[in-house]
Amino acid sequence: MPDLSNLRALVFDVFGTVVDWRTSVAREVETLARKRGLAVDALAVADAWRGLYAPSLATVRDGGRPFVDLDVLHRESLDALAGPHGLDSLGDEDRVDLVSAWHRLDPWPDVVEGLTRLKRRFILGPLSNGHLALQVGIAKRVGLPWDAILSTDLFRTYKPDPAAYLGACQLLALEPSRVLLVAAHNNDLAAARALGLRTGFVARNEHGPGQAKDLAAESDWDVIAADFIDLATKLGA
Amino acid sequence: MPDLSNLRALVFDVFGTVVDWRTSVAREVETLARKRGLAVDALAVADAWRGLYAPSLATVRDGGRPFVDLDVLHRESLDALAGPHGLDSLGDEDRVDLVSAWHRLDPWPDVVEGLTRLKRRFILGPLSNGHLALQVGIAKRVGLPWDAILSTDLFRTYKPDPAAYLGACQLLALEPSRVLLVAAHNNDLAAARALGLRTGFVARNEHGPGQAKDLAAESDWDVIAADFIDLATKLGA
Repeated sequence: MPDLSNLRALVFDVFGTVVDWRTSVAREVETLARKRGLAVDALAVADAWRGLYAPSLATVRDGGRPFVDLDVLHRESLDALAGPHGLDSLGDEDRVDLVSAWHRLDPWPDVVEGLTRLKRRFILGPLSNGHLALQVGIAKRVGLPWDAILSTDLFRTYKPDPAAYLGACQLLALEPSRVLLVAAHNNDLAAARALGLRTGFVARNEHGPGQAKDLAAESDWDVIAADFIDLATKLGA
Repeated sequence: MPDLSNLRALVFDVFGTVVDWRTSVAREVETLARKRGLAVDALAVADAWRGLYAPSLATVRDGGRPFVDLDVLHRESLDALAGPHGLDSLGDEDRVDLVSAWHRLDPWPDVVEGLTRLKRRFILGPLSNGHLALQVGIAKRVGLPWDAILSTDLFRTYKPDPAAYLGACQLLALEPSRVLLVAAHNNDLAAARALGLRTGFVARNEHGPGQAKDLAAESDWDVIAADFIDLATKLGA
């Protein structure tokens, strides 16, 4: 492992890395569908919803669209998938409620214990495309012990825009080399490394049995850990 | 007390309201002066330093100066007062260290207990002119349980610029009426109320025996509390 003695802050990707969005969203879809007497494949809805995520971010990040937060993008994606997935009869109130399911995602089982240990030694914050209000919602519900929320809405863009990573370092008043991004996504880590941040990979099975990518580290990231508890151990926390 | 059943978030002024800057800064001035063999009136240094605070903010907020954070302003103020206060012989490293004393301010004795109670019921964050890195420094050292840091550097301005109060509400995705500012300063609360935020006053003797203002509430603020524990009780937390 490279010398990380100068490390001061850990920033975390959230969807997939910290929280299990797929099971959490599917659970809320299932509950609502049952209440409305709709037959849906809830996991397929979650997968389709997440499938529209990257292209929706790109409309803002690369498409010159004025910044809108992830609730807006999630709502547009839900409206697009509702028809094909048997949710077309859902009214506005139900759709607003489903969009807010992304504020109520459960962490992976190792997360709270791992973060609690890491917090003793490092500044911790989410560096997520989910906006500040969404991050506060997730964290407060399950007790994620963040020191600061460093969501990309603060910079009115989305990862992997360099402005997001560098903006987080600037707010923390730390050189990028003193900040480590923890992510379950190799492309997120590659973007961070290119800007001088440190990198930590944790493999997550966020997509279920069909997951085809990010099953393992694809580069010599500064730390590669089995989960957040292992990460804490490897970082001496 | 007005109906506050809709309240979701409490945002806090920090210098004076959450932390006792005067005693904390004087302590560090005293320690450094002794180490360097300088005779100084440490409380007078703290008072003079804080005296330059409001005018220094105004150079950015009202003067059209590009945004600089409070470390920069604190350093300029320190350089200005060093001569008259017997600190002219301090080198750059000592001055950097003294500026960082503002990241190591002690909370008033009721703060941690009060915030811990309030956190069970409300989203909590500092809404301070001290930047995010400074707020993280203060909070981590003494365990302030913030949910998010809402410092005014996020908006590249300083209170009482309306953009600071409204920016915090926007990041929390809350109507101003669902956000209450807690402050020991009547003018801060007046600025917040004018924008529709709720207001809570806690009297603090931040200036020591010579304090001439903010000894009591000067308006019918939504809550008036003796300290943060009383505030928690009054807000049902």
